[in-house]
Amino acid sequence: MFNKATDKRVAIFLADGMEEIEALTVVDLLYRAGIPCESVSITNTNVVTSSHDVSVVCDRGMDDTRFDFDDYDMIVLPGGMPGTLNLQECDALTDQVAQYLSDGRQVAAICAAPTILARLGLLQGRHATCFPDLQPVLVENGAILEQDQVVVDGNLITSKGMGTAIPFGLAIVAHYLGQEVADDLARKIVFAD
Amino acid sequence: MFNKATDKRVAIFLADGMEEIEALTVVDLLYRAGIPCESVSITNTNVVTSSHDVSVVCDRGMDDTRFDFDDYDMIVLPGGMPGTLNLQECDALTDQVAQYLSDGRQVAAICAAPTILARLGLLQGRHATCFPDLQPVLVENGAILEQDQVVVDGNLITSKGMGTAIPFGLAIVAHYLGQEVADDLARKIVFAD
Repeated sequence: MFNKATDKRVAIFLADGMEEIEALTVVDLLYRAGIPCESVSITNTNVVTSSHDVSVVCDRGMDDTRFDFDDYDMIVLPGGMPGTLNLQECDALTDQVAQYLSDGRQVAAICAAPTILARLGLLQGRHATCFPDLQPVLVENGAILEQDQVVVDGNLITSKGMGTAIPFGLAIVAHYLGQEVADDLARKIVFAD
Repeated sequence: MFNKATDKRVAIFLADGMEEIEALTVVDLLYRAGIPCESVSITNTNVVTSSHDVSVVCDRGMDDTRFDFDDYDMIVLPGGMPGTLNLQECDALTDQVAQYLSDGRQVAAICAAPTILARLGLLQGRHATCFPDLQPVLVENGAILEQDQVVVDGNLITSKGMGTAIPFGLAIVAHYLGQEVADDLARKIVFAD
């Protein structure tokens, strides 16, 4: 049962070749916390297939007439390859990522996905992290690289990879509902004692 | 790209109301490790919807003519509610779980799912764990309750919940390919340094 705890809405963008655990851990934790979260396919079908051959049915597609970027407060970008490249090539999405950051709305990205922000020039002078092998891309594009599992810098949340997907999701929960709620959720899922 | 590292095959059983991260983390890690793993729907459609409203397309259904329990070496049971109850009510599955354990094949269960084994009388005198709130069910049914994140007792692997899904998946990898391979995978997904 979904018990809504906030009117803010999160959109997570799914592309073929995504890392499904990075994507769905966010969906799972936000559902548990009562934060409305919709999975949005960037392809022309609602079924997206991950880099590990897992097919997921998204809540809607970007071409859905009901879909409007103005309805959301946060854009979440999961990693995975070639999912990250597919997200990067979606101009309608990356234009909105830039707009969200400049509007003071929220953007969260994990694993390879922070490189999308870096290549758009959106990480200049901002604290961020990403998958270790790709960290040079952040540095080359002016980010202040950090080595925490999750890095929060104003309206930007970044994280390292599949193994940090739960801390990444919990950071989004903490953003909307506070650290105490996130810590309580961590205990409920047996992530923390 | 899937690079097969063993001829042993794993079947993970998905029911409506499953905990999708407990299920798909296993699929993800086994894919990365090159261990053949198929998701099998226990319903009469291949699309299964999780307790958090995430719909996943399974590789096959139990009623698929190509599906044969003899083709696999391990049965994996994810938790979630009411997914666990749906698995429990599937006699064709639970009969095979008992058969697998007595044959010396492998069974792995996480979160609420070890209670299925307990209620079948299969945990008598065996070391096991499960979701904290449900641990009395294990004790009442003769299990030797442990508090580790993952408990391996012969051909039985049990674990606690969504927050321990990665250690659970890594234990399955270690079973087939050794601890060193599992440790290496943990580093690759940025779960361990």
